[in-house]
This record gives sequence, structure tokens and C-alpha cells, in this order.
Amino acid sequence: MTSIDLNADLGEGFGRWTLTDDAGLLSVVTSANVACGFHAGDPATMRRVCELAAGHGVTIGAQVSYRDLAGFGRRAMEVPPAELAAEVAYQIGALEVFARAAGTRVAYVKPHGALYNRVVRDAGQAAAVVDGVLLAGGALPVLGLPGSRLLELAGRAGLPVVEEAFADRAYTDEGTLVPRGREGAVVWDPDAVVERSVELARSGTVTALSGARVPVRARSLCLHGDTPGAVELARRVRERLSAAGVRVVAFA
Amino acid sequence: MTSIDLNADLGEGFGRWTLTDDAGLLSVVTSANVACGFHAGDPATMRRVCELAAGHGVTIGAQVSYRDLAGFGRRAMEVPPAELAAEVAYQIGALEVFARAAGTRVAYVKPHGALYNRVVRDAGQAAAVVDGVLLAGGALPVLGLPGSRLLELAGRAGLPVVEEAFADRAYTDEGTLVPRGREGAVVWDPDAVVERSVELARSGTVTALSGARVPVRARSLCLHGDTPGAVELARRVRERLSAAGVRVVAFA
Amino acid sequence: MTSIDLNADLGEGFGRWTLTDDAGLLSVVTSANVACGFHAGDPATMRRVCELAAGHGVTIGAQVSYRDLAGFGRRAMEVPPAELAAEVAYQIGALEVFARAAGTRVAYVKPHGALYNRVVRDAGQAAAVVDGVLLAGGALPVLGLPGSRLLELAGRAGLPVVEEAFADRAYTDEGTLVPRGREGAVVWDPDAVVERSVELARSGTVTALSGARVPVRARSLCLHGDTPGAVELARRVRERLSAAGVRVVAFA
Amino acid sequence: MTSIDLNADLGEGFGRWTLTDDAGLLSVVTSANVACGFHAGDPATMRRVCELAAGHGVTIGAQVSYRDLAGFGRRAMEVPPAELAAEVAYQIGALEVFARAAGTRVAYVKPHGALYNRVVRDAGQAAAVVDGVLLAGGALPVLGLPGSRLLELAGRAGLPVVEEAFADRAYTDEGTLVPRGREGAVVWDPDAVVERSVELARSGTVTALSGARVPVRARSLCLHGDTPGAVELARRVRERLSAAGVRVVAFA
Repeated sequence: MTSIDLNADLGEGFGRWTLTDDAGLLSVVTSANVACGFHAGDPATMRRVCELAAGHGVTIGAQVSYRDLAGFGRRAMEVPPAELAAEVAYQIGALEVFARAAGTRVAYVKPHGALYNRVVRDAGQAAAVVDGVLLAGGALPVLGLPGSRLLELAGRAGLPVVEEAFADRAYTDEGTLVPRGREGAVVWDPDAVVERSVELARSGTVTALSGARVPVRARSLCLHGDTPGAVELARRVRERLSAAGVRVVAFA
Repeated sequence: MTSIDLNADLGEGFGRWTLTDDAGLLSVVTSANVACGFHAGDPATMRRVCELAAGHGVTIGAQVSYRDLAGFGRRAMEVPPAELAAEVAYQIGALEVFARAAGTRVAYVKPHGALYNRVVRDAGQAAAVVDGVLLAGGALPVLGLPGSRLLELAGRAGLPVVEEAFADRAYTDEGTLVPRGREGAVVWDPDAVVERSVELARSGTVTALSGARVPVRARSLCLHGDTPGAVELARRVRERLSAAGVRVVAFA
Repeated sequence: MTSIDLNADLGEGFGRWTLTDDAGLLSVVTSANVACGFHAGDPATMRRVCELAAGHGVTIGAQVSYRDLAGFGRRAMEVPPAELAAEVAYQIGALEVFARAAGTRVAYVKPHGALYNRVVRDAGQAAAVVDGVLLAGGALPVLGLPGSRLLELAGRAGLPVVEEAFADRAYTDEGTLVPRGREGAVVWDPDAVVERSVELARSGTVTALSGARVPVRARSLCLHGDTPGAVELARRVRERLSAAGVRVVAFA
Repeated sequence: MTSIDLNADLGEGFGRWTLTDDAGLLSVVTSANVACGFHAGDPATMRRVCELAAGHGVTIGAQVSYRDLAGFGRRAMEVPPAELAAEVAYQIGALEVFARAAGTRVAYVKPHGALYNRVVRDAGQAAAVVDGVLLAGGALPVLGLPGSRLLELAGRAGLPVVEEAFADRAYTDEGTLVPRGREGAVVWDPDAVVERSVELARSGTVTALSGARVPVRARSLCLHGDTPGAVELARRVRERLSAAGVRVVAFA
């Protein structure tokens, strides 16, 4: 039977500010990318999200980022590799405390925002992220984009790698994401997102911008949590996947 | 045979800024209170200090603080207990990663600066620190001032408690510290500091400001590391303790 | 003819996070307490709010705070007076740039959150805030609580002082606020808030928790902007004040 | 008579941490690039440095930076232009308060670290810095590298531009800096630095790495303040310039 993981970014508030509907999303997804304090995520929020995730049986991952609260981790930074590795490890360790206190553990690592985009092609920073994961111990799986330098280097370092796809993003004929900002880069129609999710999970393909069906490997689908209607859409995706005979289950 | 621990604050730089002579002090002390990023201590520094400490066989403790880089953790803050507990746990977890990567572990917790002073009397914040230590798991010992609410509540919660004394601070006849800012509160003469160290370790007493000898319980002596000559003074203290037949050894 | 000012906290987002409906509130209030980056308010937000305020003819005030993004400035801090004064001046100066660029200027200062509460009774911190305002130059008016040490010391220093009242807070028979957390401290009924606003503006009195009418001096009413329905309620308050013959106009 | 300005980075501590010998350097230089809080420079330090500078008759400039305390502003960041412009203006405004309180004013702007290097070639970020300077008002001169996009765009926007040279950096035959990290990029010999200063000021040339004399325009020489012996070297440079008949005077 085909199975798929659903992951989403969670705990992306900071102190007085909230962003994601953590409780709502945790009732739907199977993997929670929990912000660790560098782009979002104060300690009390991290604790609460870990408790909620554990209560729902949702797997916890460390969503590591550049140190950039003002830019929400969306501003690429030239961080020297040794510093970046230490920053990644620091974030994983901080989250681990709350995962353990909730009776579970950090089960994977996923870079956030500008760091996520950077390590698709930048081998130096990708290697630093891998070093950070190794430093943190436990050989944690790394979640990222198929074909990225991050997954390539993580795999070479002996870390499990998990590929993800985006049902609400347009794809090229080569199976890569159409860059944001280009016409049609984001799929806004909820029905289309639901259908694309099923196609990705069942056939391992996606209908590209050109109309062609192209193969896209993915053990996990990333659902966006910071838009209105995010929880409702996530729930529909999950229901349709189940109805289509796809088992929705954490990869880790 | 009498024994005593020597602890000092370490890793108290941040990025471009340095403060403590970490390598120098680690060749003398037996316990390192490592800054965890909230008052000082960037991840790369934390990593380096943990590696150095492990190399010297020095025990690593988490020096937890209010979140206050601008004030170096010296400005008391009214942090709600649940937030403070989570902040304490976060710091311990972050340090644990680097201690483990260096082949050892975080072996105790000591509050820094304003938080250290606050939990001497403030039961609410003391309880929050204890909650943070419990949250972090592993029943870590808490290092603090004899008679403090922190040690009282930590003991009640089942955590090991370790009392410390200050050879370079004046004491009252009641065995409490003369508040900083009062005349004679700090002992500046290195020879006096050395002699007081030996007295504290051997007799469990200190010569108070009045001249009276008063009992002061302490399994650890705190040496200050952020003054010129700190390493040299620490070395003299250690040598005189050894010469006086006191075994200098980590408490944890 | 009786007149009253309506002030509200604005620009209290930070980077990716938003909190207050700035555009909505700026169509109603006459004075905008703009966050200056220490508890909220990134530079781009400060710029946008100043432009909006200038466009609406709303007076701009500097909402100065402790340096505490994680706690939204709600955690009291023991900041040494010289540091606090410099921090206050820094925030005023930063905001002044955006007010001037928008064709206007910073016209008053109001402390935020924990600092607001602290300077009601703490003469040392109140004096530091006054020093900060003096340092910033221009003899800016200070907006605060009647009877507070802040207004007393600001007045003594030759600064204009402006007293404010809260239509959505309960008052004691002495004309002071019932502390938050006590039963009935907050008036939740929108109709009651509207009526109390009119009473405060027209009669200079408020109906205390006991039912007694007590005098409360106020040239400004503070409206809360971070609750659902805040803009709608503010609009009703303003309309009822106008209907009752009260001129709604900035104090500065 | 030939004249030259001497500028140095000052106030680059933060809270408990110090870096530059501010008092020492202010007795030598004619222009002080004062850190504004984004890479270094807390408000109390900014105030103190402005008072010292005013007391010595030293011109005050705003040393603006990316928001990066942990990296000391040395990590290039992809900050969206509108955000960067606002951040630059914010820093200038904050410093202006302390300059005015000291009886003077901010007289120029100089980017720091990674931002300084970035705007040599990156037209988008250079334009954003210029926008920030314009936003701050007063048509402040911009201090930077000859041939940089920053000075080109500042000039086009009608801002005065001031070119600087580095007596302790090697130059190519094209009159550009040899990149740090390359062999011989930094001139360590104090005597050589002194002689190169005189050559730059008197002849408008520098002896390049190849031995050739190449023209380098510069109304200001940048002296480094964060190395041991920095003040002594600066003093020697100033004395030799005077002895060589060069008037050492602020450009602004």
C-alpha cells in the first residue's frame, strides 16, 4: 500500500506573536517542523508544540534556520561553515529537551526559509548543515528537496535522507520547482492542491506547468500552515489521500 | 582527605567579543560554568569551550541566564515562571549537544548574574529554575548559594544540591555575603583570596568582615574569570590548596 | 467645548509578525503610540506606520520600552538608570527619522508595558525615562497615568505632561486602576466602554467598581488595538463622543 | 596645503563587552565611525562615544550595518531593499540623538563590514543604503571605497561622496584592494603603514603589491582600531603626516 508523510512548519510565533494554527495543524499532519528560536519559536512555544505533537502522535523535527528573527529566516546569510554547523546543532539540542520532556524525541531535521533555499545549490553551507546534524548526534534524517546538495551530502555522510514535494507549487518539466515570483509559481486553487497531492502520493508524478506529467520523488508532502484556511485545506488533502487508498503516516 | 571543587564562569564572549580566558582557566578549575547563549556564549564558542573542557577533564555545567545580551544577564527580569522554566531548559538542551559531541555531558546547572541573585530569595523564580532543570531531565545537580531558596526548592524536588563559597567576597557574621557596593564587599588582595580559599576548604569557615570566624558550607569555590590576573590567581589558589592537603576535584 | 484625544498602540508587529490593525486604527485615533523596535516595531514597519499616520493627520508618539522582544516589553527589568535613559533616547531618535521623512515629527513619548507600569511608582526608573526624553531634545510631552511618578518628575523637569484614562479598565474609589487579574478589572462590554468614554470625556469622572462616581483627569483616552473588534469599538467610541458634543482632537 | 582626514571605527563594544580603545583613538582621529547598535554599540556606549568625540572636536559618522550582533555585521545578508533602507535610516536616527545631545550632529554615513563590502559591487543594496541616507534627511555625505557602486549611486542621488584609502591594506595595480585572505593583503609592519599613509596623503598614490606606484584618490584614511597597538600606530601616522606638512582635518 502506498504511503505518504504530511509535514508542516509549526510553532512559528515568537513571544506575543503567533503565526501558525499549531493545534489545528497537529490534528492533521504526521510530521511537525518545529521552529527552534532562530527565525521564530520561543522556548515556551517550543515546549507547548512538542507536548501537543506528542499528544497527537505527530513526529517532531527540528526546523533549523539562520539567526534572523527580524527577517524570519528569509534573508540568506553568509555564515562561516563552523558557525553555521554550531548554530544548527544548538537549535537541535534546544528542541530535543522539549521533545524528550514530552516523552518523545527529535526525529529529523529540516532547514527553514533562506537556509532551505541556499542548501539546494550551495555545497559549503549544505556541508555545514550536515556537520551540525552530525554534531547533534543520533544520525537524524534530513528532510529536503530532491536533487539538493543538502540531501546529496547528508546521504554521503551516512544520514538518512527524505525527499519532499509541494502540492501547492508549480513544477518544471525537469521536476524542479518553478521559482516563486514567476507567473503561476504557486497553486492557489484548493481543489487543485488536493488533486496534486493525490497524484504525487499515488503516482509519484506531478502535472508540470507545461501540462506534462513528470516524476517527482517524495516520501513527504509539505503543507503550508501560515495561510488562512491552511488547516481546512490540510484536512481535505489528508481525507482525499485516505479515500484514494494512500496511508498517511510519518516517515520517521 | 578534604576535597573541594573550583568552578568558574567560562565562554562568556559573544561572536566577535571575548571576555574570559577560557583556555587558561580550564587548565586550573574542575568545573566550568559554560554560558549558553542568553547572556553570552554563541554556539561556536560553546562548542569550543566544551571541547577544551573535555580535553582537560573539566566538568561542564550549564550557566543559565535571563535572556539579556545587552545587559549580560545582570538586569533582573520579571519573567513569568512558565517562560523562565522553558528558557532554562532550552539553554541546558543547547549546551548538552556540545557537551555530548565532546564526549561528555552537562553535569550540573548554575544560574548566572541577576538570576543567581534573584533566586536567593524569590521562591517563584527559584521554583521556575527548578522546573526548568527537571524539564531538561537527568536530575542535574544545582550549584548555588547556601541558604538560597533555589537550593532549598531544588533539594525538595529531589535534585542534588551543591553549595558554593566565594573566597574573594566578604562575609557577614551570619555567613552571608556582604552585598556588593558596600565597603569591603570584595576582597581585592590576591594573598588574602588564596588564604581564604584554604580556610574555606579546610575548616569550612571564613573570616567575616567583623573578624569573627563563621562557618560556611561549600563543596565548591567560585573563582572569577573576567578580571586581569584571574588565571594566575586561580592557579595560586589551586596550588596552595594542594599544598595544604586539600584535594581539588569536581563535585559532579 | 470639551475635547479629548484618543491614543492607541500601533506598529506592534515585528518582521513577519503583525499584531495591530494599523491602517484601521489610524482612521480613528488622533495619537499613535508607535513601537520603536525594543518590544516590537521593525524599521520598515515604523516607516510605514509613520507614513500612514501622517497621511491621516494622526499625531506620532514614541512608544518606548525595555529591550525585550521575547517578552513584548511586558517583563519588568532592573535596568541601570543611565542605560535606561540612553535606551529611551535611542528609540525616540530612531522613530524621529521616520516621522520626519513622513513630513511630521515625534510629538510625545509614552512608555510601554512593564516600563509603563514600573514608572507609576518607581522614582528611579521614572527619572531615567525623563532623562531619556530630555536627552532626545525638543522637550517632548510625556503621556502617562495621573498620579504617576513619571508625570510628577517629567513636570518637575519642565516637560509637558498629559494624563490618560482607560475606558475599558475598572477604577477604584481613589481613581486608580483596579489591578489586572483582579475580578472585574477589565470592562469587556463594548457598550459599557463606549459609555464610559463619554463619561470620562464629558464629566471627567468614571463609575468605579463600587458604583461611585470618581473624578479622573484625562486629556487622552487609551484605546486597545490588539483585540478582535478593536477598530470597530474605537470607531463607535469616536462617533459617540462626537455625537455627545466632544471634540476628538490630538493633545499635541 | 595638502590635507587628509583620519577615520576609525569606534564604540564597537556591546554591553559588557568592549573592543575599541575609544578614548585613545578619539585623541588621534578626526572622524569617528560610531557603531549604531546593529553590529555593535549599545545606547549607553553610543552616548559616551558621542560625548567623547564632541569633547575632542572629532566629527561623528553613523557606522551602519546589517542587523547581526552574533556575526558582528560581517556576514553578508540578502536584505530586501526597502527593509535595508529603513534599517539604515533607523541607525542614523538613533545616533543623531546622542550626537545632538553632545552638542554636535551626525555628519556622514559609512557602512560597516559585510555591508561595506557588498555595496562595492551590488547596485541593489548600494541603492538601498543611499535610500536610507536620503530617508534620514540632511543630505549626509557617504564615506566609502573609490569606484564603489555605493559612491556612484550616492553621487547620482546628490549626496556628497568621500573616498577613503587604507594604509594597512595592499593594493593592486588597478588601485583596488587586494582581497583579504590573499598573501600579502594586509600590511602588518607599522613603519610601512606610516610611510604609506604619508604617500597616500601627499602624492595620492600607493605602492602596489607589484611595486608599481598607482594613483588612489582619498580624502580620508581609515585606521583600524581593534588591534593591539592601534592607538599608538594611529598617533605615529598622525605625527608623521603633520611632520610631512599634511594638515590632518575632518572632511566634513
